[in-house]
Amino acid sequence: MIDRRKNSPAVSGTSGLFQLLRDGQPRTRTELADLLGVARSTVALRVQALMDVGLVAPVDDAASTGGRPSSRFALRTQTKVVLGVDIGASHLRVGLTDLSGARLRDASRELQVSEGPEMVLDTVAELGKELLQRAGRSAQDVLAIGVGVPGPVEHLTGRPINPPIMPGWHGFDVPGYLQGHFAAPVLVDNDVNVMSVGERAAAWPGVQDLIFAKVATGIGAGIICNGELLRGADGVAGDLGHIRVPHGADLLCRCGNHGCLEAVASGPAVAQKLRELGRDAADSLDVVALVQQGDREAVQVVRQAGRDVGEVLSACLSMLNPAVIVIGGSMALTGEHFIAGVREVVYSRTMPLATQQLQIVQSASGLDAGMVGASMLAIQHALSPESIDRMLAGAVAKA
Amino acid sequence: MIDRRKNSPAVSGTSGLFQLLRDGQPRTRTELADLLGVARSTVALRVQALMDVGLVAPVDDAASTGGRPSSRFALRTQTKVVLGVDIGASHLRVGLTDLSGARLRDASRELQVSEGPEMVLDTVAELGKELLQRAGRSAQDVLAIGVGVPGPVEHLTGRPINPPIMPGWHGFDVPGYLQGHFAAPVLVDNDVNVMSVGERAAAWPGVQDLIFAKVATGIGAGIICNGELLRGADGVAGDLGHIRVPHGADLLCRCGNHGCLEAVASGPAVAQKLRELGRDAADSLDVVALVQQGDREAVQVVRQAGRDVGEVLSACLSMLNPAVIVIGGSMALTGEHFIAGVREVVYSRTMPLATQQLQIVQSASGLDAGMVGASMLAIQHALSPESIDRMLAGAVAKA
Repeated sequence: MIDRRKNSPAVSGTSGLFQLLRDGQPRTRTELADLLGVARSTVALRVQALMDVGLVAPVDDAASTGGRPSSRFALRTQTKVVLGVDIGASHLRVGLTDLSGARLRDASRELQVSEGPEMVLDTVAELGKELLQRAGRSAQDVLAIGVGVPGPVEHLTGRPINPPIMPGWHGFDVPGYLQGHFAAPVLVDNDVNVMSVGERAAAWPGVQDLIFAKVATGIGAGIICNGELLRGADGVAGDLGHIRVPHGADLLCRCGNHGCLEAVASGPAVAQKLRELGRDAADSLDVVALVQQGDREAVQVVRQAGRDVGEVLSACLSMLNPAVIVIGGSMALTGEHFIAGVREVVYSRTMPLATQQLQIVQSASGLDAGMVGASMLAIQHALSPESIDRMLAGAVAKA
Repeated sequence: MIDRRKNSPAVSGTSGLFQLLRDGQPRTRTELADLLGVARSTVALRVQALMDVGLVAPVDDAASTGGRPSSRFALRTQTKVVLGVDIGASHLRVGLTDLSGARLRDASRELQVSEGPEMVLDTVAELGKELLQRAGRSAQDVLAIGVGVPGPVEHLTGRPINPPIMPGWHGFDVPGYLQGHFAAPVLVDNDVNVMSVGERAAAWPGVQDLIFAKVATGIGAGIICNGELLRGADGVAGDLGHIRVPHGADLLCRCGNHGCLEAVASGPAVAQKLRELGRDAADSLDVVALVQQGDREAVQVVRQAGRDVGEVLSACLSMLNPAVIVIGGSMALTGEHFIAGVREVVYSRTMPLATQQLQIVQSASGLDAGMVGASMLAIQHALSPESIDRMLAGAVAKA
């Protein structure tokens, strides 16, 4: 009934000890025994099991008395690595970090996601292996891989679900395919969720409630509540782009409804308005350029787009009461004009209690947010109790 | 450095064993030792510690072979109790339940919350003691008290913060005052949060993402995401009532803004519209009565209020992608007309992926939701690892 191997002393209880060491503080076996309420001999076995898989090591103890060898142990973040992969509509970024999140190497490539999953994921594998080689690591050192893609993903399987700008990816087994190259768990999520995790890790590590709104070709948000990414019942939480804004009623959105935020405030919608005003604006980067040149009508149109986004964000605020709203995506590159529009509406529309400590800011991690977030998802998974149990059970089975 | 008392074998590790037993399944000491990866003698000490405080007991084991005494142990839900307190604008309900949530006794009283905190909380204490006596329990059996109040609450301290309909309650130490009567932790939260916990416990125990919208004198929501109550950075998440609805622009809300949902769809707003149509409608109960009599204009006005609530809920849906939306509060008592208005707008406004499995339903726990939810908050707290550690440390200190 009970699997004796899984529950051998080297496995069961060991991940509890490991979670204690995740704070990075070195501890003696006796301290660990006290904290866990188990015998010192049991702790010794568990520490050994974690040393065997390379996750824990003795630390140099300068304060050690009488020249005895060090007897304190700590998490070893540098022996193992993760890959963070950011797949965009037309780019690919891959980062190699250790378990503390420190970046060892990274690389990027211009690549259309519409080339299809095999082509794109083969390039991911190629870049990943190149980074490992440059860092003097092997594929066996990779504990997990995090991947962000520009479309909805079924959380449990890591398969994209009807992603509008990713032809050929619907239902594709992204984890399975990458596991043909690396024997490690693969976590896949949509790009905005991944970016919100990256932005929080990079700029707001202590914040428990954060909304990351990406305003670009599409408009979407990654929502972190109680410190956790919120995915919703079907994995489609954060779909800001198709919330109705009051004065957009006559505009048809690509979703088939009228008055969606995306139809009035996305990069293409703003570029369209500027073309109607006689400007040469094909996409959001042209919009950014016009604003940076000080074109007054471009500034006005961008500020109005900010107000429209603010209208929807003020509803989000009333509902979720976040501490921080981060604005990312190409429209955020227009700088203060866009954010000023957001702030103008948010502060006039929302009850004071929900905004007294609120910060509305431009994305700090910029183009790296996706890659950093994908690495964080991979690290969180790699150090979870379930993963540690699996590693230890594997080591026991081999022994 | 390490508190030896807190980490004595009877305390540390014991709450881990307790969490294993929370599923209610009886287990032998040997099974527990295997599951926890500790020695059988250690498990014996921990089981004894939990028996000493009355949380665990041996169970009759019909399948036991050879007439040996039972050696299986299980959580004992009936030895200890919690109080669940629902304080409304003009009523008070107190329930006594065991640790499984089974109700032992309850009582209610007509009482204005505006009488002030001492008056109301003295009545709570009086009713609580009466229930304990009727159930043959003592105040020492109360492990925790949950309290819902009709206003915003600072989560960490349990103090109401500028509650508009609770004069005299601002900053009042509700937990401290009740602890003058019962030596137990007191959890205070706003009524809608508490009701959402109650509704989930009563009708949707497996659901991880649920919104409970209360539409009455005010309009607010309790939001459960990833299985947890979402309070937000300042504790004011779920403030649906002051989100703007498109066609309410000319209506002044009591918050000072125009076009808030509360100004067009709350009980008083609907009663006002019916008075303008010549009906005798002082409050939402009159509205309910008119609808139940089949008054066609009342039905129309109520259905439109449902549409307005649906407009705001469709934004919530796009953002949070819940599995269930529960409509409660007095306006929900108008039945299908109101909910039909909600559904009409939600299904026309929201992307199909977010609504394919969605259920929009009337509150099932009705008037009891607050009391049930307050009891659940108390039980969750009482059985948390921190509470169990504290109980065990207390028992060790006394011994």
